[in-house]
Amino acid sequence: MPEVMGFELTKEYLERFGQALDARDDSFVTQSLRGVKAADITTLLFEFSAEESKYVFGLLDPETDADILIELDEDIRKEFMGGFTAAELARYVDEMESDDAADVLRDLPLKKREEVIGMLTNEEKEGYILDLLRYDEDVAGGLMAKEYIKVDINWSVSQCIEEIRKQAEKVEKIYSLYVVDEQDRLMGRVSLKKIILSQNKMKIADIYDSDLISVETYAQEKEVADIMQKYDLESIPVVNTRGKLVGRITVDDVLDVITEMAEEERQIMSGISADVEEDDNVWRLSKARLPWLIIGMVGGLVAAQITDLFSGDIRVIAGLALFIPLIMATGGNVGIQSSSIVVQSLANKHAFSGSLANRLIKVLFVAIVNGVILSVMVFGAVMLIFKDQNMALTVSAALFCVVLLASFTGTITPIVLDRFGINPALASGPFITTANDLLGLAVYFSIAHLLYTL
Amino acid sequence: MPEVMGFELTKEYLERFGQALDARDDSFVTQSLRGVKAADITTLLFEFSAEESKYVFGLLDPETDADILIELDEDIRKEFMGGFTAAELARYVDEMESDDAADVLRDLPLKKREEVIGMLTNEEKEGYILDLLRYDEDVAGGLMAKEYIKVDINWSVSQCIEEIRKQAEKVEKIYSLYVVDEQDRLMGRVSLKKIILSQNKMKIADIYDSDLISVETYAQEKEVADIMQKYDLESIPVVNTRGKLVGRITVDDVLDVITEMAEEERQIMSGISADVEEDDNVWRLSKARLPWLIIGMVGGLVAAQITDLFSGDIRVIAGLALFIPLIMATGGNVGIQSSSIVVQSLANKHAFSGSLANRLIKVLFVAIVNGVILSVMVFGAVMLIFKDQNMALTVSAALFCVVLLASFTGTITPIVLDRFGINPALASGPFITTANDLLGLAVYFSIAHLLYTL
Repeated sequence: MPEVMGFELTKEYLERFGQALDARDDSFVTQSLRGVKAADITTLLFEFSAEESKYVFGLLDPETDADILIELDEDIRKEFMGGFTAAELARYVDEMESDDAADVLRDLPLKKREEVIGMLTNEEKEGYILDLLRYDEDVAGGLMAKEYIKVDINWSVSQCIEEIRKQAEKVEKIYSLYVVDEQDRLMGRVSLKKIILSQNKMKIADIYDSDLISVETYAQEKEVADIMQKYDLESIPVVNTRGKLVGRITVDDVLDVITEMAEEERQIMSGISADVEEDDNVWRLSKARLPWLIIGMVGGLVAAQITDLFSGDIRVIAGLALFIPLIMATGGNVGIQSSSIVVQSLANKHAFSGSLANRLIKVLFVAIVNGVILSVMVFGAVMLIFKDQNMALTVSAALFCVVLLASFTGTITPIVLDRFGINPALASGPFITTANDLLGLAVYFSIAHLLYTL
Repeated sequence: MPEVMGFELTKEYLERFGQALDARDDSFVTQSLRGVKAADITTLLFEFSAEESKYVFGLLDPETDADILIELDEDIRKEFMGGFTAAELARYVDEMESDDAADVLRDLPLKKREEVIGMLTNEEKEGYILDLLRYDEDVAGGLMAKEYIKVDINWSVSQCIEEIRKQAEKVEKIYSLYVVDEQDRLMGRVSLKKIILSQNKMKIADIYDSDLISVETYAQEKEVADIMQKYDLESIPVVNTRGKLVGRITVDDVLDVITEMAEEERQIMSGISADVEEDDNVWRLSKARLPWLIIGMVGGLVAAQITDLFSGDIRVIAGLALFIPLIMATGGNVGIQSSSIVVQSLANKHAFSGSLANRLIKVLFVAIVNGVILSVMVFGAVMLIFKDQNMALTVSAALFCVVLLASFTGTITPIVLDRFGINPALASGPFITTANDLLGLAVYFSIAHLLYTL
């Protein structure tokens, strides 16, 4: 029976492992981690300090250590690698595939990075890494690996099998063989299935599939993720501007890109400005939150001044102050709902077919429906609770206007941000809320002023 | 040269295609779509009506039609399939892999579903589909396909190659061969690479890899996605409770799961209750937004009553009403920031190692840092703008308390929801905002009341 769910991290094991660490019990650590996957050891080491983890590293084989380094979050890895010498790191980097090696090296200070590269024993890999480091992390060139299998269009099937044999150690997962011409230009692909089912003397030129999707080195990672997801690809070849095959991106890297983008979007939506996690230190966490809090506070001070402008009305009109929270909360909620739907459409490009005008007309209708329903409910509630017809009229009229306005700003802001190349998710966050608060207040007081002075 | 970026949907082509549809120009439609991938045709058809799309369907081969049906969003597919007879649908379902076929059939009314199944020509597939329809859509059994290659542990490599040849048509992407014993129990896997590099007479028992991760049919889709992402798997076998191999999940399905979960979370965070898109009709869109708006409105009415309780203070203390928006906005922002960070930790299970107490102590420190900074700034600003020391003191003291309280509720709510098995992202939405609004107001007025009556 194979293991069904992998390694399980029980509380008992955790305690026992901690004791073994304290006692520097080499044999327990080595034996209990035998056969455990790097991803699981990473989860385990999360429970212990950097120093203890370094001790465990010394007991594992360098290949497992390399895999653990790859698994770590960027911030944690950066800090953790500070405790290793360049020679130690070079041993691990030697064990990594080129794309992971480049990712890890990008996290090192320039001097140490150069030292590590200088100490690599595998010259081919050194060349690969130097090539990959030229690219930004967030484009196809920065995602791709140099390990893949390339076959000449003039080869026979048996020559391909020979090539697979040669590269088998280097390329862990093959997926497809990429077919190139004499100038290394990408011509197509052959699946392993086809290689197995074809006779050894057949020519690649006769069996390869020329209908192949590739990306250029400068394609944005989001674009690569979209293409791989749209066409259900498990790997995609990367070409340079002259059509020469230079690398391959696999689906596991794209899965990570998609997950990171979702996390980033959540942070933007919740008004956290840097990429932080609960594990980070207090100051880093505070700093990531302050910018939006300060913007919100400035908004609040402006709101105070707007309210001050109408302080005469507040003194005269009994109950005017009571409904400030209601107006503000509704404006905020409507604004975030509207922007969220637009952000979603912008993300799946084919999701909305109409023009901007059609879009706004639809938004208007939805706002009218919700605005009418809410206004009627509020009118009834205010009459029932406060028994004040003027107030009920003022609040429900203001609420209707606020729903309309917030729908409009919530819809238009992400579209405008997107046009300027800014992440539209920014509009679903505190930005929209603050703007709507001010707008909502001004509308509310103006309507009250008008209705009561008429 | 292979195509580098696939089919491009230009405005000119779109116009020309529209004219061809109007003129029912069969030859233009057929010729211009030759070789275009189903995903691209789907994007194209999004620009046209269901009736026009049906016309295009009639001109394409059933395999492409099947692929387009699979590509469609569930809601759109449901509606679109209403226009086809059971016989037409059966032709398409006959072309699908079992997992896609089951997904499509789940969208049909029960009677039509049975009709379609009864008209399938491929008996083996019919059996597959009936088996898959037993599972919920969101567990491993509902994600898996019945198309995969299974080899007996006693076979030789050449017997495996024969099996691949037999199944080649049925299984588009093979990834791994799954090794089973006489009782069909999953024993391990063999990669295609190994098959290619092994001699024909070698036994599978000698070359297979028994270190294999599988999931059981009832595993939640989120769990499956986490495992595949953690261990970088492009496919995972599914076993029943007795360890028998019953299906296979591939990474493309998991990519879709991850994307859907991210979308769902965004909707929850922005207070939209059903799975809606901008394309949906006005009433559906309005209805999805109303529940949270009404909850927010009720919160606003409660806020009005709280404010009413302190109406005496508001009349006496000049400026008290001015800072209601400031207090509310800050409470809302802090609450959403706090919950968002906790939701993120809950999603990556290994991200936070400490106990609940440690977590809360850390939250407290972050809140104190931000609270002090904001309070000092607000004190200065209120002194500068409104030149009122008592007011400055009241607002900054209240703000400090609100930051602390909102941090606490924002942290504790998602943890509590998660313990009760509710999606913790719900806490990042209007729920936290509404609660914090009320709490913040009560604190603000109470502090003002205390400070001014001392």
